[in-house]
Amino acid sequence: MTDLTELVRVNDLEALRIWLVDTADHGIADELARLDPDARTYIFRLLDRNRALSVFEEMEAPLQQNVLEGLRDDRFRQLVEDMDADDRAYLVGELPASIATRVLAGLSPAERAKTAALLGYPPESAGRIMSPDFVSLRASMTVADALAKVRRAGDRAETVYTLPVTDDERRLLGVVSLRELVLAAPSNGVESMMTTRVERVRADDDQELAARLLQEADVLALPVVDTEDRLVGIVTFDDAMEVLEEEDTEDRALSVASAPLGKPYLAASVMGVARSRALWLLVLIGAATLTVNVLQFFESTIEQAVTLALFVPLLIGTGGNAGAQAASVVIRSLAVGDVRFTDLPAVVWRELRVGVLLGGLLGGAGFVPMLFIFGSDMAIVVTTSLLTVCTLATIAGSALPLLARRVGVDPAIVSAPLITTLVDATGLVVYFLIARAVLGI
Amino acid sequence: MTDLTELVRVNDLEALRIWLVDTADHGIADELARLDPDARTYIFRLLDRNRALSVFEEMEAPLQQNVLEGLRDDRFRQLVEDMDADDRAYLVGELPASIATRVLAGLSPAERAKTAALLGYPPESAGRIMSPDFVSLRASMTVADALAKVRRAGDRAETVYTLPVTDDERRLLGVVSLRELVLAAPSNGVESMMTTRVERVRADDDQELAARLLQEADVLALPVVDTEDRLVGIVTFDDAMEVLEEEDTEDRALSVASAPLGKPYLAASVMGVARSRALWLLVLIGAATLTVNVLQFFESTIEQAVTLALFVPLLIGTGGNAGAQAASVVIRSLAVGDVRFTDLPAVVWRELRVGVLLGGLLGGAGFVPMLFIFGSDMAIVVTTSLLTVCTLATIAGSALPLLARRVGVDPAIVSAPLITTLVDATGLVVYFLIARAVLGI
Repeated sequence: MTDLTELVRVNDLEALRIWLVDTADHGIADELARLDPDARTYIFRLLDRNRALSVFEEMEAPLQQNVLEGLRDDRFRQLVEDMDADDRAYLVGELPASIATRVLAGLSPAERAKTAALLGYPPESAGRIMSPDFVSLRASMTVADALAKVRRAGDRAETVYTLPVTDDERRLLGVVSLRELVLAAPSNGVESMMTTRVERVRADDDQELAARLLQEADVLALPVVDTEDRLVGIVTFDDAMEVLEEEDTEDRALSVASAPLGKPYLAASVMGVARSRALWLLVLIGAATLTVNVLQFFESTIEQAVTLALFVPLLIGTGGNAGAQAASVVIRSLAVGDVRFTDLPAVVWRELRVGVLLGGLLGGAGFVPMLFIFGSDMAIVVTTSLLTVCTLATIAGSALPLLARRVGVDPAIVSAPLITTLVDATGLVVYFLIARAVLGI
Repeated sequence: MTDLTELVRVNDLEALRIWLVDTADHGIADELARLDPDARTYIFRLLDRNRALSVFEEMEAPLQQNVLEGLRDDRFRQLVEDMDADDRAYLVGELPASIATRVLAGLSPAERAKTAALLGYPPESAGRIMSPDFVSLRASMTVADALAKVRRAGDRAETVYTLPVTDDERRLLGVVSLRELVLAAPSNGVESMMTTRVERVRADDDQELAARLLQEADVLALPVVDTEDRLVGIVTFDDAMEVLEEEDTEDRALSVASAPLGKPYLAASVMGVARSRALWLLVLIGAATLTVNVLQFFESTIEQAVTLALFVPLLIGTGGNAGAQAASVVIRSLAVGDVRFTDLPAVVWRELRVGVLLGGLLGGAGFVPMLFIFGSDMAIVVTTSLLTVCTLATIAGSALPLLARRVGVDPAIVSAPLITTLVDATGLVVYFLIARAVLGI
């Protein structure tokens, strides 16, 4: 592997140029993300206009900002002018106001108008990731007309593989693919060929919804319409894949109670990383003080049977694990559309049975060793508690994400740590109540 | 929402037919996944040949198997004969031997040969998801020749948008897109137009690698070559998206110590769900017995200061959370290629600092309330322990996934529950040692 930092340090331009020629755009973008800002700008400046654009479009917004700040005014303008309108709108949405203004000010009137139109849609909406540069057809066209239009207008378009067909009021009637046009006889009519059962999204729909629909429907691009079903843009598969990767990264961060970093891990600062985790840790440790209260309440019970304290981590740990397993599968199923809120009773009923099975299995496996080491009373207390805690945990783990979705909160917020913390306090109450009953204290 | 179960029960064919016409293929597939097997087969049989195929291709393998088992022999043969070779190979790889044999036996010789060739590649390899039905060009062709070939051979091909260019030995020279062909002058040469810096994968490469490369490179399709760089197939974006969704679902299951279900949640049996979680729960409860031993070792310390027991869940819970946060971001960064094994020292060094920051923050926030409620000794013990445990947790959480990758184990195995369980025992040792030193017992 080429050591770029070293090449920049010794200023070996020849070796850097060879590396830039040999490496794919996304490979260059990946390596630039791993360098310090100065080396990054230095190498980026070595790229010619076309490659600079294609490498730039592969970079993530915080690093794009970084590169922009290091460019002279003419290269800065050229770069943002050449960007696709949707990528540019996304970037402007992420930039601090001062540099966003500089981007918009440098644009030609046509490109500025397009960017402004996209920025008019709400953040995270399909309108923000759609491209306004599409080629649309009329139903009355022949295949030859349509291909002529593609040749005339296709150069600037984001895609020419999915061609929406509209009426006189720009309302979406159907879609024809370039493949169908190329394989058809030139005299065929577009109307007779077009697919009319077309998935579409509204510009103000959530972008994750659009991306999942594109993936589910296995299409290359999805037409975007306004409230009156008029065509306003097109979302392409690459934008959808990026949205899905981002959403998955966000869900993963939430699943362990972190805020998303919003940039590659190694490009984030130590303070930035700590900040992404601090708030949730504070909330969770706040919630965990409940366990201190519960234990304080049962302090005399512990004093009378210190052995009880030995099983606290094992018991609440197992409950947390069982709850996290249930929560995770329900959250994922909600995200990919396999489960909906109305499935709540069915889901809770199945998780109740799963919890009993798992709790029974774990309690059963532990009963005999417990019996020999700690005696029958403790064996009964611990195994009964395991059964109860596992069942409560799977029920809570499966119900909470569905309830969160119901009240409009991202179900991914029901993280393993959150479930663990909730189950901890409840589990302790169950454990000590069972202990008091069985041990008679 | 149409209640399909009800429509099947009252046998309302008219309403079912209307619903089938109104619903997209993937929508039908989604709803079928939610029905019981009999209703599923019943509705599937109402579809005509073309729609049956497109709905079938949207279904997941276990449900496809289910549908196949309910079909009469002629429809069975027709359906599997019409499938894309790559989808069929994938399905056969998932089916039990008896029904896989029935699928292969019913195929025409040409389709059987293609399927057998794909099945010759290792499971989970790019060869298993590639399509052998592609249109390839020669460098010596003109644009007009190339378009003629697309018209001639494009009907059966999986895609005609990405057209690999090969030499006489079928070695991959470059790629031309249909868009470029359509926009170019007919007399242009393919050689002068083709992109030669082409990402490719080997047929025996891992399919996740292929899918991530396709996503990173923002291409519609990726040529697949053999060990001698000869073109053998093409992986398209829809297969790649499916692989990525599956890998993400798998990683998510692993991240909470479950085995992947391999089918939609509601289509799995209660026993199947319990089985996917039982093994890991047993392993983890086995590991958690370590906490019982640690506490037993410090039993006399607890007897002398029962207050110490009150903070056990809070302390180990927080350590587990901090460790899971670190592990999750490192696992995700490894998956998307932002971090590699060689980054280990840099990653551990940054997580050490993050751990100190977070532990310091949590300890700092808790110090004053602790001081007032439990006195200075306990305040010192708990806050020092928090700092130490958080730091150990972030170090372990970040180092373990990298070490797993190094020894060839899927880093996703370093789940939140695993980290929590490991941190629990270590954290308890740290806590009681600090307690003994500070309290002088």
